[in-house]
Amino acid sequence: MQTLPAGLTATAVVAASSANLGPGFDCMGLALSLYDEIVVETTESGLKVDVEGEGAGQVPLDSSHLVVRAIEHGLQAVNARVSGLNVRCRNDIPHSRGLGSSAAAVVGGLAVVNGLVNQDGSSPLAETELIQLASEFEGHPDNASAAVLGGAVVSWTEHDGALPRYSAAPLRLHPDIRLFSAVPEDRSSTAETRVLLPEQVSHIDARFNLSRSALLVLALTERPDLLMEATEDVLHQPQRAAAMPASAEYLRLLRRCGVAAALSGAGPAVIALSAQAELPAEALEYGAANGFCVREMTIGDGVRWTSGVAVRG
Amino acid sequence: MQTLPAGLTATAVVAASSANLGPGFDCMGLALSLYDEIVVETTESGLKVDVEGEGAGQVPLDSSHLVVRAIEHGLQAVNARVSGLNVRCRNDIPHSRGLGSSAAAVVGGLAVVNGLVNQDGSSPLAETELIQLASEFEGHPDNASAAVLGGAVVSWTEHDGALPRYSAAPLRLHPDIRLFSAVPEDRSSTAETRVLLPEQVSHIDARFNLSRSALLVLALTERPDLLMEATEDVLHQPQRAAAMPASAEYLRLLRRCGVAAALSGAGPAVIALSAQAELPAEALEYGAANGFCVREMTIGDGVRWTSGVAVRG
Repeated sequence: MQTLPAGLTATAVVAASSANLGPGFDCMGLALSLYDEIVVETTESGLKVDVEGEGAGQVPLDSSHLVVRAIEHGLQAVNARVSGLNVRCRNDIPHSRGLGSSAAAVVGGLAVVNGLVNQDGSSPLAETELIQLASEFEGHPDNASAAVLGGAVVSWTEHDGALPRYSAAPLRLHPDIRLFSAVPEDRSSTAETRVLLPEQVSHIDARFNLSRSALLVLALTERPDLLMEATEDVLHQPQRAAAMPASAEYLRLLRRCGVAAALSGAGPAVIALSAQAELPAEALEYGAANGFCVREMTIGDGVRWTSGVAVRG
Repeated sequence: MQTLPAGLTATAVVAASSANLGPGFDCMGLALSLYDEIVVETTESGLKVDVEGEGAGQVPLDSSHLVVRAIEHGLQAVNARVSGLNVRCRNDIPHSRGLGSSAAAVVGGLAVVNGLVNQDGSSPLAETELIQLASEFEGHPDNASAAVLGGAVVSWTEHDGALPRYSAAPLRLHPDIRLFSAVPEDRSSTAETRVLLPEQVSHIDARFNLSRSALLVLALTERPDLLMEATEDVLHQPQRAAAMPASAEYLRLLRRCGVAAALSGAGPAVIALSAQAELPAEALEYGAANGFCVREMTIGDGVRWTSGVAVRG
């Protein structure tokens, strides 16, 4: 095992993501133009974690920090270790809202390992490995794949071996599609909201979502006019509605206005896809009156990393 | 209500179709280059039905004939009637194999109504109505939509009113994809095989198919290299395997050879999608040894109809 010298630096920039998009539970994802930046430096000993922005004062600043755990996992994967580490996180992605902040932390943590280990510009962890390792952390590949690849992504899981294998393929988002996020002050926990989902569903409901998830790929890439039909879902949004009534009401309102809206991930944030330049006034008013921060997004880039050597004054 | 005069003729040509394609239960369909032709003539009285080819000597030759029922339904829909009718069916689509022969009969029957009613070339039943009416007959829109539109099709069902509303959107099939059908001598009945499906499925299995049906649209249109993953299914093919062991074994064999194969509709026919010009020798041998008629297909056209006036010698 290689011990990395002190004084190496690396940065990663990684996007927020919106998963599910209605019918595509655990398989559809969309990277959003909202980024966390992670800057690390290898040191002689110890661990120092700083967090600015989202999560500051809330997340742990020790080895249980998600970015640190991801870095450790990435180092193991490439058979390397460090004697000490400084980690600085500048977070713009809100936590526990359904915008993929945990996937961003994990993907970012793995990506800085690429920056640390290969100072010559090559990447020991290829995109497919970043997707695999990050999805293992997450337990589902939708956010992680979007954070790794950027853009719109279909991901899937194979259970043919001891461990699940995760894969993803990019989609070309139709240029007419505008993205709007509506992020409430209230937080949510994916783990908690996932519990609300039934273990069994009717074959009829499964079929309903099957057709919509197929249609969603067509709508996202070629037929924005079908986004309303393509974002219908019966497998998770109705089940989560009671836990996040303001978001559920916002979904209904947006869809009543003809805007294809869905819970972002497990919520409570809402993502709206539209061929219109603006949301209807009624939707903006509801958002403002109910504590949602509503803003237009563009599609996010895939994770990027850089390498360097610390320069000390 | 308009009574059509005797002596009008109309023809319809309508394609076979392969539904489901693995994960896309009741929503994915592909028209195949195998056609039934229906020729009708209005008469003064009575009903005469002739059937050549597939189904000859097996299907009823009275008003319970599926094509006749579809014609009656179509005439009602356009507020017309006939005093008498001759119907001649030249069938190339095998019955009860999962190749959409019933959808073809219904779509063809409705389409000849367009030919009879509008001798000026316009169509009282638009494509959307043909899809709706034919899917009502079928109870699901996948075969009917492919037969109406031709090509590859995603279809879906809305249950927001008293009656289900059926819709469909065409996909551009990637030009590298070759289609092979393997049709056994054994017949099957969709109604019977549908009974094998469970009313409830696990949320996990539903998610499995969700991701594959999304991926299938991408694979069919842009990424033939992903067809293997994109045609995986856990919601209906495993459940039907015991009822059609030779087809189930053929699926396994084809997929072991790297050919993306699926049951065609409810089976027992098998459809294979491949970027290769030929099926592997092993697959051809299995087909020959087990009574499958294996042949290459091309993508089928949407239903066409013509109008005319009977010329008597």
